[in-house]
Amino acid sequence: MFKISRKSARSKARIGKLNTDHGEVLTPAFMPVGTQGTVKAVTPAQLRELGADIILSNTYHLYLRPGLKVIKKAGGLHKMMDWDGPILTDSGGYQVFSLAKLRKIDDGGVTFSSHVDGSKQYLTPEKVVEAQLILGSDILMPLDECAPYPSDRNATVRALERTTAWAVRSMEARARAGRGGGSLFGIVQGGMFKELRKRSADEIREIGFNGYGIGGLSVGEPRDLMLEMLETSTENLEHDKPKHLMGVGYPEDIELAVKHGIDLFDCVIPTRLARHGAFLNAKGKSIIRNAKFEKDMSPLERGCDCYSCQHFSRAYIRHLFLANEILAMTLMTIHNLRVMIRKMDDIRRRISAGSL
Amino acid sequence: MFKISRKSARSKARIGKLNTDHGEVLTPAFMPVGTQGTVKAVTPAQLRELGADIILSNTYHLYLRPGLKVIKKAGGLHKMMDWDGPILTDSGGYQVFSLAKLRKIDDGGVTFSSHVDGSKQYLTPEKVVEAQLILGSDILMPLDECAPYPSDRNATVRALERTTAWAVRSMEARARAGRGGGSLFGIVQGGMFKELRKRSADEIREIGFNGYGIGGLSVGEPRDLMLEMLETSTENLEHDKPKHLMGVGYPEDIELAVKHGIDLFDCVIPTRLARHGAFLNAKGKSIIRNAKFEKDMSPLERGCDCYSCQHFSRAYIRHLFLANEILAMTLMTIHNLRVMIRKMDDIRRRISAGSL
Repeated sequence: MFKISRKSARSKARIGKLNTDHGEVLTPAFMPVGTQGTVKAVTPAQLRELGADIILSNTYHLYLRPGLKVIKKAGGLHKMMDWDGPILTDSGGYQVFSLAKLRKIDDGGVTFSSHVDGSKQYLTPEKVVEAQLILGSDILMPLDECAPYPSDRNATVRALERTTAWAVRSMEARARAGRGGGSLFGIVQGGMFKELRKRSADEIREIGFNGYGIGGLSVGEPRDLMLEMLETSTENLEHDKPKHLMGVGYPEDIELAVKHGIDLFDCVIPTRLARHGAFLNAKGKSIIRNAKFEKDMSPLERGCDCYSCQHFSRAYIRHLFLANEILAMTLMTIHNLRVMIRKMDDIRRRISAGSL
Repeated sequence: MFKISRKSARSKARIGKLNTDHGEVLTPAFMPVGTQGTVKAVTPAQLRELGADIILSNTYHLYLRPGLKVIKKAGGLHKMMDWDGPILTDSGGYQVFSLAKLRKIDDGGVTFSSHVDGSKQYLTPEKVVEAQLILGSDILMPLDECAPYPSDRNATVRALERTTAWAVRSMEARARAGRGGGSLFGIVQGGMFKELRKRSADEIREIGFNGYGIGGLSVGEPRDLMLEMLETSTENLEHDKPKHLMGVGYPEDIELAVKHGIDLFDCVIPTRLARHGAFLNAKGKSIIRNAKFEKDMSPLERGCDCYSCQHFSRAYIRHLFLANEILAMTLMTIHNLRVMIRKMDDIRRRISAGSL
């Protein structure tokens, strides 16, 4: 399912190929986020054109709306949203803990009020796996408990232990469903405690997943601490299994994480920045509303090959933003995602060339 | 510039070909509305794909934002918005009277506060023509005065006389600019008075425009009255010049107007309905949020060849709407515009077949 074709001599960076029922993905890869079954502001045709080959969606959101009955009748998520490439689905553990109200957690699962309609919901590790099998996800993630940052040691241990117990039950639920369908990854937690990161990685590794998500990072901690936790989380995992650093995708973090052996990234930042008027470029980001772009006839980023940069100027896109035109968000999203895809191309090129 | 290739034996309906510097348009044609230099929620590539070959934009809006300096620097409106087909620009007479504040009108022109930033503006017929020459419009419209509905006879006469006087000045301004560039149409006003409609048409015809806009209709009057005024407005105009029924585009009105010899239509309704969740179909329109579409896996309209109908279900698009996803507006806009384009194809086919 995952094959490493090239390893860096200078770091843990590697080039791999992830095979799924919906095609293969060259890694390291960035996954645009389509939380509710659409990458915001773009069509799947535009997504394909800008070079995306895997996207991420969210079980929690889709479970609540439109609901599994609708998605099942549609023939699964791929068919419903017209995306024929691979899809990784987050379990929604993070969302249950960040979005849902009246949350009550016990060893069995989590009870909460839907943020959509207030209805009472009960999710268990088993239900979350079954939901993802109905979605038809290529990569499934188990329900986990992500302790908030900062958390003390006791709270972190409790979340870790529950995450491990739920991981075991998730694996059993996946096994009951038999062969065929997507692969289940395990999620490493452990907060900001090295020894708990190590313990979580050891426990999760023992379960025998096809790959790993590294959870609970980039939640507000300093970057050095994140990298330290990342290193501890991954050093005892099998080298030849794919690893996803969940929710991390600041361009500056990606390269550092690749050097720690991370293969998959997802982040809402590039698309969210786009909708709020910030475009990515070599220097970081720029704000399109800035008056200096009023008569700037150059593309968002010189040399960029995206649809937006090939056809439109900063001055025009600025005008669209000031005039509250939806097209502004579409064009900026296309550009920002293309920047991320090009960044990953560049990273793979540098691994090949032995310079990363 | 305009060539009629086929006339109906049963009505004034005709098929024509309108030649412009940016390509030709088969008429009767529907022009998607791109008020601020973008047809809302779609890219020009999507617009082309759905079969649009001429669009309408608005001088008043573009004059205020992004302003002529920006558009001039961009190389004109076509280049700025990446639309290489014909563009007809409304003068903005209607917008000055409906959107602008602190309006003061005299024979010279109109003073108003910009609805964008409150700045004081002064527009004259000459400035409006010059603005459209900078935009590079293929069809220019003169500044006119559109009396509100209802208006009494005196107010309507005053608006009519000013419209004629401004039409003369617009024609002179266009002539001063020399050959090359777009054609100027004349606008017929006259409110809901048959005799004033006739008088306006006679006065405007005398000026020698390349085509005509019929203004001040579909402003709240009953349909029968609209058709009566339309008939009077057009019966004394040269048969072989193109005619645009300004702002009219309810599917049910278009066919009636075509029978009165109208060649061009524009209307914000199909795109506005789309953004508000109503999709057009053979029966009229349906509201996508309706619960009956929750598990409806059929396309918005059976048999429709648009991108949205070829790839997505009502259930999915309903989900996108309920989840406030931008893609919902894009997919609905593509469909509604395609319905309009197909309607015009059908009308031309029926004229050809002699059945309209």
